[in-house]
Amino acid sequence: MIAHADALGIVTHRMSNGATLVDAGVQVTGSLEAGRLFAEVCLGGLGQVQVCYVPLDQLQIPGVTVSVNHPPIACMAAQYAGWAIHKDEFFAMGSGPARVLYHGEGLFKEISYRDRSDVAVLALESSVLPTAEIADKVAQKCDVTPDQLYLLIAPTASLVGSVQVAARVVETGLHKMHKIGFDINAVIAGIGACPLVPIAADNLRAIGRTNDAVLYGGRAWYTVQTDDAQIEAVIEQLPSSASRDYGKPFYDLLQQYNGDFYQIDPLLFSPAEIFVNNVASGRTFHAGQINAALVREALLAPDDARGQA
Amino acid sequence: MIAHADALGIVTHRMSNGATLVDAGVQVTGSLEAGRLFAEVCLGGLGQVQVCYVPLDQLQIPGVTVSVNHPPIACMAAQYAGWAIHKDEFFAMGSGPARVLYHGEGLFKEISYRDRSDVAVLALESSVLPTAEIADKVAQKCDVTPDQLYLLIAPTASLVGSVQVAARVVETGLHKMHKIGFDINAVIAGIGACPLVPIAADNLRAIGRTNDAVLYGGRAWYTVQTDDAQIEAVIEQLPSSASRDYGKPFYDLLQQYNGDFYQIDPLLFSPAEIFVNNVASGRTFHAGQINAALVREALLAPDDARGQA
Amino acid sequence: MIAHADALGIVTHRMSNGATLVDAGVQVTGSLEAGRLFAEVCLGGLGQVQVCYVPLDQLQIPGVTVSVNHPPIACMAAQYAGWAIHKDEFFAMGSGPARVLYHGEGLFKEISYRDRSDVAVLALESSVLPTAEIADKVAQKCDVTPDQLYLLIAPTASLVGSVQVAARVVETGLHKMHKIGFDINAVIAGIGACPLVPIAADNLRAIGRTNDAVLYGGRAWYTVQTDDAQIEAVIEQLPSSASRDYGKPFYDLLQQYNGDFYQIDPLLFSPAEIFVNNVASGRTFHAGQINAALVREALLAPDDARGQA
Repeated sequence: MIAHADALGIVTHRMSNGATLVDAGVQVTGSLEAGRLFAEVCLGGLGQVQVCYVPLDQLQIPGVTVSVNHPPIACMAAQYAGWAIHKDEFFAMGSGPARVLYHGEGLFKEISYRDRSDVAVLALESSVLPTAEIADKVAQKCDVTPDQLYLLIAPTASLVGSVQVAARVVETGLHKMHKIGFDINAVIAGIGACPLVPIAADNLRAIGRTNDAVLYGGRAWYTVQTDDAQIEAVIEQLPSSASRDYGKPFYDLLQQYNGDFYQIDPLLFSPAEIFVNNVASGRTFHAGQINAALVREALLAPDDARGQA
Repeated sequence: MIAHADALGIVTHRMSNGATLVDAGVQVTGSLEAGRLFAEVCLGGLGQVQVCYVPLDQLQIPGVTVSVNHPPIACMAAQYAGWAIHKDEFFAMGSGPARVLYHGEGLFKEISYRDRSDVAVLALESSVLPTAEIADKVAQKCDVTPDQLYLLIAPTASLVGSVQVAARVVETGLHKMHKIGFDINAVIAGIGACPLVPIAADNLRAIGRTNDAVLYGGRAWYTVQTDDAQIEAVIEQLPSSASRDYGKPFYDLLQQYNGDFYQIDPLLFSPAEIFVNNVASGRTFHAGQINAALVREALLAPDDARGQA
Repeated sequence: MIAHADALGIVTHRMSNGATLVDAGVQVTGSLEAGRLFAEVCLGGLGQVQVCYVPLDQLQIPGVTVSVNHPPIACMAAQYAGWAIHKDEFFAMGSGPARVLYHGEGLFKEISYRDRSDVAVLALESSVLPTAEIADKVAQKCDVTPDQLYLLIAPTASLVGSVQVAARVVETGLHKMHKIGFDINAVIAGIGACPLVPIAADNLRAIGRTNDAVLYGGRAWYTVQTDDAQIEAVIEQLPSSASRDYGKPFYDLLQQYNGDFYQIDPLLFSPAEIFVNNVASGRTFHAGQINAALVREALLAPDDARGQA
């Protein structure tokens, strides 16, 4: 990304402490290709992301396909946006392979995988650039010198944000598997597809849409090695439709809960449609389906028209 | 392409003046992969082209997906086939990044972007190889020495031609936007999909089919940053269906106008279906749709059967 | 693959005779990306394989797209699994570019293409690792020193097996063309798509499913240069539906013939849907169609439920 910054519409800054900041959407436009690469960085290089078209009823709209090697490592130890970086007025969720170097999140008590590296790479979803002080803190927690830290950043409401969030479709389902008690170390491969979100006018609308794309328009296929009983115990809970909050655009849900993200049912956070193939038995389990009408409304209808409805 | 010429089915000639000629379909067979790379060359390296399948009613047929960074530069300053190269009996439309080095086309009066390079790369759509004299002329207009000129060539009716023309689907819509007065500097990303054209027996039939693929089977999605009013002013005119000449296979239209390309309504030249997402408002505008029946007839029915109908 | 073995979930062994063994699924898990690269190795680097989604009625399931340069060389001289490697209890079908170095199969009496190389690369579909003795034999037949031999291996019932077999969709149709007397030297390009097979619990079920995916769910498009009469003579025979054995899951067919593979009608082995575009005439010929109901049953229904039906 650094070598092709101009072509990708991104810019690289050397921070005062020597850290490298790759701005992929805050002060620059970015590009879909930069988003594709940003997403592969989040996956720690253990996934392949492609821009494609996906069907939506009779429409075809832009989307991404993501194929993941070592899903527990790629998605949970790297891609999951679980590191809350805040200092003074700066706030961003961090994802990428630096998370496991730090391994300070509660999640890492449940994940045994650890990594060692002289270089740390962290991706930030934010519309504000981090300071050198923040970079220092991140480098310290990852036990690397600041000049070996690479920070990538893009807002949710940006070309890069649109791609990198859609590329979380496999991770979203994996995280829910983990939450509801399925041992994700059994997951040996993941593949998914998700519509690209039209960019919203502000980050709150963008957060709404990116969630709608995954929750109502996302598909994921997991290859696992376990007992069928383990899958049967969770399969019906896996798609987003198992949630009591299923069926409303995410932005409207946030309004309903007065903006309190944590009141939303955690079971909502997973792809709309799930396949699980068990190599131990050869069986394939299937639950959920795309909610095309809701995706069309959420992604393609004017926000204000929806708001009035 | 030069390093992998054998595998790609192409051949490289050193011309008498030192220029490099990459024949991707005149005296050689070429390949779909060579077409994919040829198309990325036309885009000046600012776009990603993938071979895929696209739906056509209940059928699935080969197609391409193209994702474009910096659309005004990639599509208008590079990919648009706007440089007419003719000398004696040779004639070809030139596209690619050499066009902006020359910047002698009228279009460059309306595009401010300029480029400087010691190397010039021009792609020619023709079934006749250019002479060293033509290469000299091109090198001179690009202000490079002939040994720093790379000419790529493929006929319309060839494997490479079929891919590289389909990959113009985003450019075609962008050019029309420009023609009808939309400021294309507002366009920050483009993505499109278009069926690959079955290769025709002659270049005139091939020109017909490649136009049919884009005009009746092409989709494009533009991300822009502007006022909604600017989009509303043009959206209904953007798809090919806005043209008075919409609805006939392109070859038949050419016959109707006695082969005079310039009598065809310029409004016809755009993809069948257009989405425009405005990041300033978050809204998405949509016009047109694929004409699957016409695409099937134009691409898959025998030319002579159609001719008789 | 060797340089990125960890990320790909594969492992490289130096055999006692100096040969390199790339285990992509026997003692390791592998990945879909390793399968994609394995498939490109089988094609001798003359094809591009992409993981994607393919439609199956109203479903979308994971699949592959494959685009082939020089199909007679890529598919017949390299990818076709025609080299039976057996010694003591080891048995595997070998594919990849080493086959033409050996050129001892009967098929090479009908294919004039020959290759010379100091390095030999052979891909094995097996769940047992080969011994150094086997590697010696392969090296000798390819006329390379053992330290210049690369063996890749993956079982049918593995992530890599699932991808690399689906990527044979263009080859399967080409092989049938050859068998029924169509001169495959006329084939200048091939492209195809095929569902990825859910991994089965054993290799026999896996062989059943991988065949079902190609025979009932595979599409292939060939670009040829010949007389239309040559195509008309074979087009109706080309899809799998031309076979008397069409219409049953492959595993059930094997049972019906008491496991004797060679009693199955050879005409069954081809994609479900075939397009042939003749560049000499410009015409496109079409036969067969996807059998979505059978693919769903074969790939997604429990094997035991099917077995009982």
